[in-house]
Amino acid sequence: MRDETALLFANEAFYAAFAERDMLAMAELWAREKPIGCIHPGWPPLFGREAVLDSWERILSNPSAPEVETAGAEAVCWGDVGIVVCYEKVDDTYLVATNTFVREGRGWKLAYHQAGPVTTPPPGGASNDEDDDEHDEDDEEEVLLAEAGDDGLEDDEDDDDEDDDGDDNPPSRSIH
Amino acid sequence: MRDETALLFANEAFYAAFAERDMLAMAELWAREKPIGCIHPGWPPLFGREAVLDSWERILSNPSAPEVETAGAEAVCWGDVGIVVCYEKVDDTYLVATNTFVREGRGWKLAYHQAGPVTTPPPGGASNDEDDDEHDEDDEEEVLLAEAGDDGLEDDEDDDDEDDDGDDNPPSRSIH
Repeated sequence: MRDETALLFANEAFYAAFAERDMLAMAELWAREKPIGCIHPGWPPLFGREAVLDSWERILSNPSAPEVETAGAEAVCWGDVGIVVCYEKVDDTYLVATNTFVREGRGWKLAYHQAGPVTTPPPGGASNDEDDDEHDEDDEEEVLLAEAGDDGLEDDEDDDDEDDDGDDNPPSRSIH
Repeated sequence: MRDETALLFANEAFYAAFAERDMLAMAELWAREKPIGCIHPGWPPLFGREAVLDSWERILSNPSAPEVETAGAEAVCWGDVGIVVCYEKVDDTYLVATNTFVREGRGWKLAYHQAGPVTTPPPGGASNDEDDDEHDEDDEEEVLLAEAGDDGLEDDEDDDDEDDDGDDNPPSRSIH
């Protein structure tokens, strides 16, 4: 299996553990031999397996924790470390998450997770819907981009090579 | 030089290029041989050198782009890939950024940047101030954590081993 494909499956396993509130699976997904960290939206960074898994245990055991749908996953591999960037739909808002994986044993283990708000839905729409492939650049221009001040950016490359995945198939695309 | 120290210096070089609006330096800092990506706050992910550098060119050439101070940098190394997690103070708000570096040639090159809002200042205060080492957990409890619903998290490990760096010395600490 190509690394990018394996990374996309590992990413799906992460969100499956989240959806099923499966703390044992979550604990297995995170690296044991390599240092790990996690930034939940709005929160300071957590480092170390104890702090990271403790945070996930609180999340997964919280009855009011929302459901999370994912879309637009893209994988990048740099050898023994790879990332999957994907959108998370939480209630009616979108986050964009970067999940960093390291090779450990026979597979990829989570080493780092950062999620933060994004103001536009994924190019392919929520849950890999196929009918919303174009960015709304008018909306994008209105976005507050702290680092850019008031100068809007356009995503020049993101519309070119979308896959049209079914709802349940993990790999949406990989870039490299 | 230890990898974590080198990563912290590479991270400082990134913010120096930002502060000096030095697009040539910025272009040199990003990897050429490995795939790169970038998520500016609120924005969809950008992938590829052209899109990423175009975004930085717009930011650095924008007279209204704010100044960015950094604090609380921490480095994690996973072999040929490493990250530096740091706080960015932009006007009166804080972001937390993860800058991912890959080994390329003799040094570390940026491969990925993600910044998003954080509701608490860095443990050591802005710009490595030394008099604000404790989290305000009351504030933390009020934070909206989308992934956790309304269950507040505490950062169990973050207060233990702060370095007290001077204002200008890059490495604030590394973990591994």
